[in-house]
Amino acid sequence: MQELKQVLDEKCITAIRMLAADAVEKARSGHPGMPLGAAPLIYVLWNKFLKHNPSNPHWFDRDRFILSAGHGSALLYAMLHLTGYDVSLEEIKNFRQWGSKTAGHPEYGHTPGVEATTGPLGQGFGMGVGMAIAEQVLARQFNREQLAVVDHYTYAIVSDGDLMEGISSEAASLAGFLKLGKLIYLYDQNFISIEGSTDLTFTEDIQQRFTAHNWHVVKVDDGNNIESLETAIREAQQVKNQPSLIIARTHIGYGSPKQDNQNSHGEPLGTDAMAATRKFFGWGCEPFHIPQDVAEYMHGAVEKGKQFEKDWQSLFEHYKQTYPSHASLLEKQYAGELPENWDDAIKNFVFSTDEKPMATRTASGKIMNLLAEKIPHLIGGSADLAPSTKTFLSKYGSLGSIHSDGKEQRNIHFGVREHAMGAAVNGMALHGGIIPYGSTFLVFSDYMRPSIRLAALMNVHSLFVFTHDSIGVGEDGPTHQPIEHVMSLRLIPNLLDFRPGDANETLAAWRLAVELKRPAVFFLSRQNLPVLDTKRYPVLEGVSKGAYILSESGTGKPDIILLATGSEVFLAVQAQEQLKEKGIHARVVSMPSWKLFEEQSLQYRNAVLLPAIKKRIAIEAGITLGWQKWVGSEGAIIGIDRFGASAPGEIVMKQFGFSVDAIVKHSCDLLS
Amino acid sequence: MQELKQVLDEKCITAIRMLAADAVEKARSGHPGMPLGAAPLIYVLWNKFLKHNPSNPHWFDRDRFILSAGHGSALLYAMLHLTGYDVSLEEIKNFRQWGSKTAGHPEYGHTPGVEATTGPLGQGFGMGVGMAIAEQVLARQFNREQLAVVDHYTYAIVSDGDLMEGISSEAASLAGFLKLGKLIYLYDQNFISIEGSTDLTFTEDIQQRFTAHNWHVVKVDDGNNIESLETAIREAQQVKNQPSLIIARTHIGYGSPKQDNQNSHGEPLGTDAMAATRKFFGWGCEPFHIPQDVAEYMHGAVEKGKQFEKDWQSLFEHYKQTYPSHASLLEKQYAGELPENWDDAIKNFVFSTDEKPMATRTASGKIMNLLAEKIPHLIGGSADLAPSTKTFLSKYGSLGSIHSDGKEQRNIHFGVREHAMGAAVNGMALHGGIIPYGSTFLVFSDYMRPSIRLAALMNVHSLFVFTHDSIGVGEDGPTHQPIEHVMSLRLIPNLLDFRPGDANETLAAWRLAVELKRPAVFFLSRQNLPVLDTKRYPVLEGVSKGAYILSESGTGKPDIILLATGSEVFLAVQAQEQLKEKGIHARVVSMPSWKLFEEQSLQYRNAVLLPAIKKRIAIEAGITLGWQKWVGSEGAIIGIDRFGASAPGEIVMKQFGFSVDAIVKHSCDLLS
Repeated sequence: MQELKQVLDEKCITAIRMLAADAVEKARSGHPGMPLGAAPLIYVLWNKFLKHNPSNPHWFDRDRFILSAGHGSALLYAMLHLTGYDVSLEEIKNFRQWGSKTAGHPEYGHTPGVEATTGPLGQGFGMGVGMAIAEQVLARQFNREQLAVVDHYTYAIVSDGDLMEGISSEAASLAGFLKLGKLIYLYDQNFISIEGSTDLTFTEDIQQRFTAHNWHVVKVDDGNNIESLETAIREAQQVKNQPSLIIARTHIGYGSPKQDNQNSHGEPLGTDAMAATRKFFGWGCEPFHIPQDVAEYMHGAVEKGKQFEKDWQSLFEHYKQTYPSHASLLEKQYAGELPENWDDAIKNFVFSTDEKPMATRTASGKIMNLLAEKIPHLIGGSADLAPSTKTFLSKYGSLGSIHSDGKEQRNIHFGVREHAMGAAVNGMALHGGIIPYGSTFLVFSDYMRPSIRLAALMNVHSLFVFTHDSIGVGEDGPTHQPIEHVMSLRLIPNLLDFRPGDANETLAAWRLAVELKRPAVFFLSRQNLPVLDTKRYPVLEGVSKGAYILSESGTGKPDIILLATGSEVFLAVQAQEQLKEKGIHARVVSMPSWKLFEEQSLQYRNAVLLPAIKKRIAIEAGITLGWQKWVGSEGAIIGIDRFGASAPGEIVMKQFGFSVDAIVKHSCDLLS
Repeated sequence: MQELKQVLDEKCITAIRMLAADAVEKARSGHPGMPLGAAPLIYVLWNKFLKHNPSNPHWFDRDRFILSAGHGSALLYAMLHLTGYDVSLEEIKNFRQWGSKTAGHPEYGHTPGVEATTGPLGQGFGMGVGMAIAEQVLARQFNREQLAVVDHYTYAIVSDGDLMEGISSEAASLAGFLKLGKLIYLYDQNFISIEGSTDLTFTEDIQQRFTAHNWHVVKVDDGNNIESLETAIREAQQVKNQPSLIIARTHIGYGSPKQDNQNSHGEPLGTDAMAATRKFFGWGCEPFHIPQDVAEYMHGAVEKGKQFEKDWQSLFEHYKQTYPSHASLLEKQYAGELPENWDDAIKNFVFSTDEKPMATRTASGKIMNLLAEKIPHLIGGSADLAPSTKTFLSKYGSLGSIHSDGKEQRNIHFGVREHAMGAAVNGMALHGGIIPYGSTFLVFSDYMRPSIRLAALMNVHSLFVFTHDSIGVGEDGPTHQPIEHVMSLRLIPNLLDFRPGDANETLAAWRLAVELKRPAVFFLSRQNLPVLDTKRYPVLEGVSKGAYILSESGTGKPDIILLATGSEVFLAVQAQEQLKEKGIHARVVSMPSWKLFEEQSLQYRNAVLLPAIKKRIAIEAGITLGWQKWVGSEGAIIGIDRFGASAPGEIVMKQFGFSVDAIVKHSCDLLS
């Protein structure tokens, strides 16, 4: 019986291998080597351990699985198909074709059962850490004695390439610090990367490295040995206060003539090698054929999955009875709904003009703290800059901290690890039940740009708070002064941009960022800015349109339109007044969010920008390229086409031409 | 005597500490904590070990020193002043002020003696690795028995923050693999970062981590102990085949009331704390006062420095006599001059239209290999994608490789470590004597963006070859298809951009990239493109202007201008022909380099773009934002404002509207 089972296991693994290789072969494109090598890893994990429900890929308490080595997508699609997800054999045959569910790399939201978009190496590693953080946080928030309604693992298969990326070290360090015991990674160690053997450049001691990061590390010398893999995973599950790395020695292209060779990595094996591989495995089947016994056995995951969810449902019923309000909150949080009255603390709140000028980062910090009281799952932190980015939730403690004195732990000290922060925020957003945020100085958004892009590509509710958003930073100088960053983030599809002009625009932006459930970035000032009077200016309503008429200087058609964002908005307002004295009527348009403005009707956009008025001046302390879109051929742009300089902020701003006088002069020049 | 010396040492260290703290205090801005803590490290290093010549900061064989923790700039400026560099006391007093040499963070090219711009954490760590690689390569190239004309160390002071950044793990792994024995880093371990104690998030075992990366690691328990520091550095120098990390336990804000507290990190101590600090050190001096004995002793570095260089000059004289051609080559390489006849292999070379269509990445690979034969110091590699980026120099071996069989080692396997690659390329460029390049897929330029920005900010000759530059990538799908990347790199000041339209534009671009000695990025196609006939089209000359009239369809004023770059250029040329058949005369302008075009005279730009012709269509397989600059208010843009899709490249291109038919249709629409 045991032997029969072993034979069937091996047959299933071969079926997975061949199905993946067949898909690559038919597509004439893809990566057969990884699936051939790592099939036993995913098979053992999914068959023996993974708690999931193929009929309901969104069941909340499922284990998460990430294929961080996303180039092995055919392996994942093979598993999804065989275990009964809504990925048909037709889709497998259409691997990498226009409109198929089986894209070149796994895409979240595109294919049922894909938990995260992967392919850019290291991202999956980092997102897994975020998922495990979310699980840890939610378990603490909701679990009660005997009622562990949040109780699942996060697994990933990671590759040599993932571990070469710096983000994996950052994320491993964070995970080790946070003692994420339910994070278990299988390292597909095949010693081959694209340029050849890893001895060409990657000879570090991985076991020692992860031990240094406080991980439980175990080696499986033969990645084809089902029992060893099973033992290692079981052992990892027992280690409760450390993440686990299982180093499984595998062979890329296993069973093919290109085994252990980089040529099996990123291209089809070819007809001859496919034939030889079939022979090696004694695989008589035609391409894409699944033997009946394999199909039936693996399809068992469907029934098992239903049972998993059913068991959890009955547990949750008990929970509901005992803790009805918690149960309702958990359901809401997970569904992405906001608590009732979530905006109680902000809905009647405005910043008064009686207040002193206030940096938008400061306003943001106040708003976040107000929001946090009513939104228990607003959770995040900073890459070691919280005192400057003002993102610390002051009534709460910190994850993993010995200093938190029993307070609810909602702040995350990501450390100077921007990239892992970005990926972890994405992982939390993917997990669900959390509205996550990360923050740093805008100039350092570059360090996490691959993760920001992925947030946009996956269209998840990741929020990034970037402060110190211009040369207004001052003394820290050009290394710390963003020039191209605001525009470069506007270039990313799907990503909402918010560069509010004062404390009240910041308030409006935060409301939108929470409500719209879209990936968003904030650009906030270091320096203080006058507070706009919401009675005089339509600030709160305006921000939701992306751009709006902040102020008209007179009736009738304006002579000129001043477009500004962020810290330059008040300069435009002041320039408007001086221009009025000269008999020039300027309309001031504030443009806090280009993406939202682009999404408005043409009619609205024309009402704001008035196509007939060609004299337009944009004012933004950043690169000029891009503003031509709004100012047109006859407009002018007051911007910065060089790097910054170190000196007090006000001086740098003036030296670079950001003053009321300069705007007035430019306006007069343009009109004359 | 020994005791007197020790007293003087301590006095010097106090002088450094107080000078730095005074500078921060006067500026009311800066970072006093790090200088107070790390002064003994830099003092011991510079006083006992550093081989440098303050009178000639550019002397070739000097040891390199990087303050990777660039926020401690006041410490470096204090040292530069005291050891006789051209940094006056006046400059120290003008710390962080407009126009001073003493910028907020150390800036290369701005302040004599600053070897690298630092501040963005981890970059200095990575650049030091590049410098040590350059030293290793040049030593192998030039040193002869008894004539080690290239023989210097690379030192850096690195901080907790540097080591949290993933780039430091990538760079450490590479340095360990390459056995960079002359790389010695002092780790200013003060257990404090901006958010507080490092036990908030950073508890990994650094010694173990670096041991895993094949570093020699030694601990100095008391960072104030001069003898221990000296012993550790001396020991590190003896370790020839491993880089060294000296972990020195220091105290941020040492001697001040804010010692061991994050509040001493990033703001002036304040009057009271300054007074208390003076008292702690028994420092009676007024602010900025340097005791005579300290000034004299530390100024001794000037004479010592002259002797260092003199000794080397006499060694080099011997070398010159024995190896005159090598000596001349070394002088040239270091001066940044190209060898005579450097362009022999390419100057009469063009790609023929008889050749099959060719990807620009393939053309680039051929050109690089031609250049490499005549430019011995063209050295670089890829982040594990050389077979795809075509950047491997096929006649040469690889650094540190056991597979190179005695060939000259000029290829670097950077591994899947894009960020460390970027920083190392910058470090090699800063070191001098090397023309370094790095390469990866364009979409992964995001992983190394902070280093690309730094290359541009420092204006050094770093070359980055990015291939697979659009949705033309095909099956790999949206994670691998750049959309916003070309434009986002054009946004960076100083950075030269090259998106050549065919093999011959690629040839011209490479010539410029080598000759102009500026930081540059290439955007190259994965897919094959027709070769432009250089007899018919003014390709080779045109590229140097950034944009040029590739083809006119008739005489007189054109009806419409088609602007294109890269893989879209041939589509524009083909559309031009079809339009001609419809009686529409289109001018085709190829725009391979926006930066170069912007640098042309207005007259030239107008001659190319013809201000009177408002009907213009831009064609580029990337984001549209930015193109408004060239097409104006009445133009149109065929671009991509969404993420890509997985399918064969030609299909994706067509589905996204990149076809001759689409261009013709858009043109007709625009004209009607």
